[in-house]
Amino acid sequence: MTATALPVALDAMGGDHAPAVVVEGAVEAARAFGQPVLLVGDRARVEAELARLGVTPGSLPITVRHASEVIAMDESPAAVLRRKKDSSIRVCFDLVKAGEAVAAVSAGNSGAMMALGALVLGRIEGVDRAAIATLLPTPRGRTVLLDAGANVDCKPQHLVQFAVMGEIYARRVLGIREPTVGLLTNGTEDTKGNDTTREALALIRSLGLARFLGNVEGRDIYNGNCDVVVCDGFVGNVALKTSEGLADAIRAMMREEVERSWRAKLGYLLMRPAFKAFERRVDYAEVGGAPLLGLDGVGIVSHGGSSARAIRNAIRVAAAFAQSGVNRAIRDDLARRAAPVAPGPQPAVEVQ
Amino acid sequence: MTATALPVALDAMGGDHAPAVVVEGAVEAARAFGQPVLLVGDRARVEAELARLGVTPGSLPITVRHASEVIAMDESPAAVLRRKKDSSIRVCFDLVKAGEAVAAVSAGNSGAMMALGALVLGRIEGVDRAAIATLLPTPRGRTVLLDAGANVDCKPQHLVQFAVMGEIYARRVLGIREPTVGLLTNGTEDTKGNDTTREALALIRSLGLARFLGNVEGRDIYNGNCDVVVCDGFVGNVALKTSEGLADAIRAMMREEVERSWRAKLGYLLMRPAFKAFERRVDYAEVGGAPLLGLDGVGIVSHGGSSARAIRNAIRVAAAFAQSGVNRAIRDDLARRAAPVAPGPQPAVEVQ
Repeated sequence: MTATALPVALDAMGGDHAPAVVVEGAVEAARAFGQPVLLVGDRARVEAELARLGVTPGSLPITVRHASEVIAMDESPAAVLRRKKDSSIRVCFDLVKAGEAVAAVSAGNSGAMMALGALVLGRIEGVDRAAIATLLPTPRGRTVLLDAGANVDCKPQHLVQFAVMGEIYARRVLGIREPTVGLLTNGTEDTKGNDTTREALALIRSLGLARFLGNVEGRDIYNGNCDVVVCDGFVGNVALKTSEGLADAIRAMMREEVERSWRAKLGYLLMRPAFKAFERRVDYAEVGGAPLLGLDGVGIVSHGGSSARAIRNAIRVAAAFAQSGVNRAIRDDLARRAAPVAPGPQPAVEVQ
Repeated sequence: MTATALPVALDAMGGDHAPAVVVEGAVEAARAFGQPVLLVGDRARVEAELARLGVTPGSLPITVRHASEVIAMDESPAAVLRRKKDSSIRVCFDLVKAGEAVAAVSAGNSGAMMALGALVLGRIEGVDRAAIATLLPTPRGRTVLLDAGANVDCKPQHLVQFAVMGEIYARRVLGIREPTVGLLTNGTEDTKGNDTTREALALIRSLGLARFLGNVEGRDIYNGNCDVVVCDGFVGNVALKTSEGLADAIRAMMREEVERSWRAKLGYLLMRPAFKAFERRVDYAEVGGAPLLGLDGVGIVSHGGSSARAIRNAIRVAAAFAQSGVNRAIRDDLARRAAPVAPGPQPAVEVQ
């Protein structure tokens, strides 16, 4: 990756293992990519973590910015907006707004991230709702799922904007030339879906995306047929959490079956490198973070349980996003679509 | 299981491998359980399959009822209702209505099953919408998910009825004394959910179910914490199809990793019995079929790709359901809740 000249603002206090693991992730990113990082949080605690890791001032492109408050995982976004003007998340976004950082990254309260991101940075013109865009593993690569949980009650127009934003993200950040886009419903036929998705289906079709597949099913999240899967945040959250639960259940049941025989235990030992390779392939830590698509700036949310590796990769994602031109492309695309069509020259009559 | 005296009506023409596999399943059920089965469909084709399997007339409690029409998998329920009065699915329900069969079973078009079931049998008094109740594997047993796909646009009141029906089903058919019931949303806090589920949450809470957990997440479908998970059919379908897709993707990716080394291949051979045991545990065929809860009668839908074993088990489920008293219990429960509360004697004052 190419590091950005300006730092990524990282919420040092966000996540289940903050600040220790978050600071470790920042150090890894600074070492591996030379990426400047602004650690935002309780200065004394953050500096103690840096000292623990043997980071001497000036040895890495890491600086610390004090923030006196911390937003808890279960605080409601509404309460956060009213209080806590000096929370670490808020300060991260303030730094982006002031042009002192290229992106805000947090493994903390994602609802607060979304609310504060929208408050401080605002949304891209033409975007009514920002969406969390998550990458999920498939046998062929990755699928972008959005919205992964930010907006529970969506109108058709919101889903349309998610489709536009997701397609541009897949092009610009994942490097897919003509991403396939699908609307997540309960079947592939046009008659499937609920009232909201049926209306959205017609609207998205009228956009003329390069490769819109129409309605897709839950299977298409993981089979690699669809690069971008569009849904509201309620459905996206259910799909994600169901996946996590199923993966855990499969692990637990396989473990039980293996425990039943020595033969299977030996087989497991032999297969362990294959299991590890598989786990790396599907490991969330490799993705690191999900962008809040539609913010007028860059905000990246990470899992609360993020490891140092996940934080490191979230910083990488943040820097890549900041350099991708995605937000400008979204703005231009939505403006172009909203503009009245100018009467151009008539097409030449095609001679058969 | 205890066979019913009256037969189960089985749609011989429904499913991807009909009539061959369906007839095989009927024969297996008749042999294994002594369950009488009425095979409904094209008489010549069904009898040819019976002959192929060496079933001589009278040797098993299997009879054939001719139906001249077949409903295709992709026919819309609306079209099916207007036409095809002599479809195999319709005739199955007619037989139940006429008291000649205890249940209708089909691996065919589930939308047509639902529509024809409601048309011919009607719904239990107090039930506005019937729901598909699917059993999903967990490390501790099974979870009932409803609605698994019948009703895409649900009102809060429908979700309330699903909760009541699901709880009674878990009690009566799965034998769980006090089933835990959860409402599927995007988080466990009361503030989570969309407009519909937030309203449903308050209504279900007011029912006074023995063990209502409130909001649950996608994870709870598979972790065994929740016996009955309630959602609309759109969300239920997405959760199910996402699960199928993820399970397939995990298999495909594991296969690729195993193929990379001889060591892993050997390990796989040693682990194969454990994998097989796991697959049996999660195999849909062991469940066989999902009841249409809320019909005033018994209708069981099976996967289109059902094996003979799945059909055999769907017949077992149908007979068990017919004998469970679930429908009467649902009717009584809803009537009791709808009845105005009679002014009873005042409770005695409790002495501290």
